[in-house]
Parts: sequence; structure tokens; C-alpha cells
Amino acid sequence: MNLDPPSPISLAQALIRCASVTPEEGGALSFLDDLLSGVGFQVERPVFSEAGTPDIENLYARIGTGSPCLLFAGHTDVVPTGEPSAWSHGPFSGEVADGVLYGRGAVDMKGGIACKLAATLAFLRERPDFAGSIAFLITGDEEGPAINGTVKLLAWARERGERFDHCLLGEPTNPSRLGEMIKIGRRGSLTGAITVHGRQGHVAYPHRAENPIPGLLRLCSALIAEPLDGGTAHFDASNLEFTTVDVGNPATNVIPANAKAVFNIRFNDDWSAHTLGAEIRRRLEEAAGNAVRFSLDLQPSNSPAFLTEPDRFVDLVSRAITAETGLTPKLSTTGGTSDARFIKDACPVIEFGLVGETMHQVDECVAVADLERLTTIYARVLEAYFPKGGS
Amino acid sequence: MNLDPPSPISLAQALIRCASVTPEEGGALSFLDDLLSGVGFQVERPVFSEAGTPDIENLYARIGTGSPCLLFAGHTDVVPTGEPSAWSHGPFSGEVADGVLYGRGAVDMKGGIACKLAATLAFLRERPDFAGSIAFLITGDEEGPAINGTVKLLAWARERGERFDHCLLGEPTNPSRLGEMIKIGRRGSLTGAITVHGRQGHVAYPHRAENPIPGLLRLCSALIAEPLDGGTAHFDASNLEFTTVDVGNPATNVIPANAKAVFNIRFNDDWSAHTLGAEIRRRLEEAAGNAVRFSLDLQPSNSPAFLTEPDRFVDLVSRAITAETGLTPKLSTTGGTSDARFIKDACPVIEFGLVGETMHQVDECVAVADLERLTTIYARVLEAYFPKGGS
Ligand SMILES: [Zn+2]
Ligand SMILES: [Zn+2]
Repeated sequence: MNLDPPSPISLAQALIRCASVTPEEGGALSFLDDLLSGVGFQVERPVFSEAGTPDIENLYARIGTGSPCLLFAGHTDVVPTGEPSAWSHGPFSGEVADGVLYGRGAVDMKGGIACKLAATLAFLRERPDFAGSIAFLITGDEEGPAINGTVKLLAWARERGERFDHCLLGEPTNPSRLGEMIKIGRRGSLTGAITVHGRQGHVAYPHRAENPIPGLLRLCSALIAEPLDGGTAHFDASNLEFTTVDVGNPATNVIPANAKAVFNIRFNDDWSAHTLGAEIRRRLEEAAGNAVRFSLDLQPSNSPAFLTEPDRFVDLVSRAITAETGLTPKLSTTGGTSDARFIKDACPVIEFGLVGETMHQVDECVAVADLERLTTIYARVLEAYFPKGGS
Repeated sequence: MNLDPPSPISLAQALIRCASVTPEEGGALSFLDDLLSGVGFQVERPVFSEAGTPDIENLYARIGTGSPCLLFAGHTDVVPTGEPSAWSHGPFSGEVADGVLYGRGAVDMKGGIACKLAATLAFLRERPDFAGSIAFLITGDEEGPAINGTVKLLAWARERGERFDHCLLGEPTNPSRLGEMIKIGRRGSLTGAITVHGRQGHVAYPHRAENPIPGLLRLCSALIAEPLDGGTAHFDASNLEFTTVDVGNPATNVIPANAKAVFNIRFNDDWSAHTLGAEIRRRLEEAAGNAVRFSLDLQPSNSPAFLTEPDRFVDLVSRAITAETGLTPKLSTTGGTSDARFIKDACPVIEFGLVGETMHQVDECVAVADLERLTTIYARVLEAYFPKGGS
């Protein structure tokens, strides 16, 4: 297969050199626009707005009108760089040193997008008459509030009658080695705050006050006394972490009026945000009895747990990975949330990309060899997804 | 006995009309100076300074050179008034309405000082040749940092060779009715902070982080699982209150690095600050085992628990109270700290004053009848303390 030109390395460099820290487009989507338009994609650039958030540029591109339609999804926005001088190579320089490409977005996920582009361009050169469609759904708001990004872009596409059969999202899924891990689902996320209400007073007269802190200790301890579950077929056990506890009372002779704890739960497909919220409330009420007055404030959750059941498409991607790397990828649901939680409502979605070790860090980088191998994997996926003589 | 002029009411009014919110002298000490000088006291007005705190005026006055020497101690500074318009009578107006005198300091403790003055003036008029001495030790820094107040004034007096046999401090000791309660000691106060050290990380990857909050829950719960003691002959059980817990992490997807709790203990004469700190450390270490990394930061404590054992002087004051009120005062060690914790190193000290219900509040006030009765009680104390024909 002829992968040049352009190479995934040069594409990744071009994208990294666009300073597209959320919400800045930085030229990254325009670069994709030009490239995809040039090979026959119909490209749209919807901008989404919402009060209180910056306007965000997005990109949707499709080539072909037939079935099946394979969707490549992703984002060109990146997290901030921190102090640029802390980087050994400029965060937007796209420099290659000793076979490693440096820059913000190298693995999350401009590198992944570059590989998809390179694989698609190569595939189209060899199979311009393929039966089916390829679509790119690329947002500039994944690392930010994610309000004017994939959610609205999917709704926009649905309204235009766009339908997808499968989606491959290019987030960095491998913990340390290319080929280790496909994500076939994601845990849900639920955030809540517990406030225990007491009565302020002087520490020397505790009988005239009601200290909320012992009550909060009791409720929080009860919440983590027993595991939420034991995990499911494809998911680890759900996990609760307290992220903060705050009273904010600077006076060491004053009993405070209220005490608050915030928790976040990453939960598996045993639960919905609704059933989990009810279980949390049940545990708190049981621990509180009549002794502790508390309120529970659950944030609305747009992160359900979801699973794309292993099937023919997962097998197809797995085989492409094994053919290139020799590894049998683990089918995992670990890690944080991603835009797959929105895409799963449009079509089955799985994730496979680069090695995530350096993502969001100083000196984010990717091995040039990994970019080449991931391109080949994506190319193998395209070939298998659109077999010669297929309908 | 002839209590007029001046009456304790007019003295209390004059003092209330001096706006002596710490650190302001407000004319209150000058008023005492004039009055005491006028009846033969030798009056000194030492000013004490310390870097980082305002200079504070104080007053020391003595009449007589003989033994025994009875010390009347107190403070003329008052806590802030808050919004003056919230008061039904101006906080510095000293207005009397329906037999009640209103104003900041009415009970804490300009009213108490007025009663001591009135009783002393009456006593000196009747017994100008009494054998013994009476001293006034009045600070302007009791409600503030208490750095340039009683502590330094006592050291200053000691250096001048001043010796006292007993001290009667005029803080408001009665919870709701004049005559209910003498304070014969005070609990100690110890403040400390517990910090649990973890490792910051993302909530989706808890195995790469170490959440300090469950450790803090464990340590705090262990600290209050068992009472510190069961109380002693003259003291309630020691009591620990958590005053704040703080993490200060606004990110609901981040596991924080550290979590901190602050506690204050009011402790009885079973403990010194040192032995109590050791017990706290022992409990924390036992609960932490090897699982929780923590540090304990104990604030230096200048508030030991102390007791003035009930003796002849306590009896004398009790009898004076009973003769006037018909009540047998309870000998108590409850409530907050007072300057008695410093005076106890100079001589036996007990506290008896007005009714504390309104102290530090809007519309602080005292019944005119209480001022008159407390004056009579102090006068009875003076008569009994300096018996006719006594040496
Ligand atoms: Zn990403
Ligand atoms: Zn006071």
C-alpha cells in the first residue's frame, strides 16, 4: 500500500502547528477542510453557540452516499500547554527528535486524526469506487465544556438525514503500547454534594450549638463502607471518590453551621445515574437516621455508562490491530469519559487510537513508528469494512 | 450602707459612653484613673506594645500597703457593636429603659467594674482606716489578641513587687440569674490541625492517585469514637469539636493531594496541653497504622485548665452572694476562657459578675436592680475580707 504523500507524520505536524486550545479553532479545521474537500469530501463547517459559552467551530465531511457509512469521529481542540518553556520542544512546534514527534495534541488526538486522514486518502486513491460512505465528524469542543461540540454536531447531522453504521473514535486508548486496548464502552459519571446542616455556636458551649462535622464524617464513611457493586461482564466495579470537603470556617473557637462534601462516581452498566442516585440517597438516609440533617444535591449527569457489545465490527478492528501489532487488544471500558457517550446514541461506537501516556502533559509526544502503524491499522479497517465487491 | 453618690448605674453609664472597642481606650481608663486617684488610690497607666499588634493602655491602682491585698481584675475593652442601627438603644448611649441599662459592655464587663468601684468607694468612706490593700488591675486588651493586656500587666506588677492574696474577677458568670454561679476555674483550650497527605490524580484513574479524604474520615472518626475522659471533681468531661474541614478542590474530576481538619478541645484538669496533645497523636497513629500518611500540627496553648480549690475565700464570696440573693451559687468551671487563666499564677482567683445572657450580642443590657445587688455583694465581700479589727 502506498501511504505517501501525505504521510501521517506531516499531517500530524501540520495539525499540531495550529494552536487550537479550546475554544480556538487555530486553523486546524480549515486544514482538514482543504484536505478533505480536495479529495472529494463534501465538507460543512457548522458553528454552534450557547449563552455563556464561546462560539465553537466544528466540521462534518462525507464522501459517498451509499451504505454502509463508517464514521471517523474526533476533536482538534487541545488542552492548554502550561508554561511553554517547560517543554523540551515547543508545544506547537511539531518537532521530531529521535523518532518521536512532540507537541500538544500529539496523541490526544491530532495524531489519531492524522492517521485516519492518511489512511483514508490512501484508501480513496486505491478504491475511488468503493461501495459505501466515509464521514468525518470533528469538533473543536471536546476538552472544554463540550456544549457546542459533538452533541450539537450529531443533532445537526441527524436533522440533515445523516445516518451512520459504525463509528471509530480516535482517542488515545492504549495505556503504554499500541495495540493493547480497544474501548468498547465507558463508565458513567455522577457528581453529587452532601451538605450536613447544624447550628453555629461557640466551641465552649457545644450544647447550644450543633456541629455538622461529625454528621458529615458519619455519612461519608457510610457511603464508602461497602462497595457499590462487584463489577459486570465488561466493567470494573463502580468507584466513588470524594473530591472535596469544605467548611471554610477560619475561627477555631466557632462551631460551624454547615459542612459539605462532594463526590464523583464512575459507575458501570449495573446502574443508571437515576438508580445510582437513589442508592446513594438510601445509604445516606440509613446512616443519618434521625440524628443527622442533610441534603443531597445530585448534578444532572450526561454521562451514562454504555457498552458496545463485542460483535463483527469489534472483531474487524481487533483483527486489523493484531495483523499490524501482533497483540490481541483488550476490550476495555476503563478510564474517563469521552464523546463516545454521545455518539453511542447515533450508532455503535468503539475507540482505538494512540498511546495515552503523555496526554495532557508537558512534552506530549508520539513515536513516529506508532503514527505509521496506526495509519496501517486504520487502512486495514477501511479495507475490511468496505470489501471489494461488497455492496 | 450608703451607696450614693456615685451609684453603680451612673458609673456603668459613664463607662458605656466611652467607645472602648478593642484596642481603643475610649476614655474608659481615664475615667477610672480620675475616680480612683480622687479617693486616694495610687494609679499607674502602663502602655504595652508588641510588633504586629496595636499599643494598648492598661491601668493599675492600689490603695493601702498592708496585707491582705484583694485584687479586683477586669477589662474595659468591649467587642464591636455590629450595625448600631440594629440596637434598640445606641450601643454607647447608656440609656435606661424600664429598669434596664443598655449598651455594649453592660454585662461584659463595664457593669461589673462599675459595681466594684461603687462598692469600693462606699467601703472606703466607711472604713478609711481598713487594714490591708485593695488593687484594681484593668486591661484594655481582653477581647482582642490579649497580648498587651493582663499577661504583661501582671508581669509588670510582679516586677514592681506587687503581691496579691486573692483576686475577684468580674466577668459575667451567671447564666441567667444573679447569684447562680461562681467560676472557680476554667477549662483549658487546645487547637490542632490534622493534614492527611495523598497524591493528586484523575477520578477515572484512582489507582494512580491516593485520595486523602477517606484517610481523613478515618482519623477524624477515630478521634471522637471514645470520650477523652469522664470529667473530674470540679470539671465536665473534656470535649473535642471539629471547627473546619477543608480541601478546597473545585474540580469534580480531580482527586486532591491533601485534606485538612481543625479541632479545638476544651479540656479539664485531667490533662495538660502536653499530655492531651500526646493522647491525640496516639489516637491518630493508632487509627492511621501504615495506611494513612498524616501530620498533626498543635497550636501552642496558653490556656491550661486550672482550678482554685474551694476554700475560705470561695466560702466568703459564696456567703456574700447568698446573703444578698438567697441563692447558693454553683461552683463551676464551665464556659470559655478568661484572663483568670493568667491571674491564677499570681494568686488564687475566682470569678463572679453579672448575668451573661446578652454579652457580645446586640442590645447587651443589664437590669438596674442587678447592678445594685452586685454592688452590695461586692461590698459584703470587702467587709468580710477586711474584718474590723483584723490585721
Ligand atoms: Zn481527547
Ligand atoms: Zn469579658
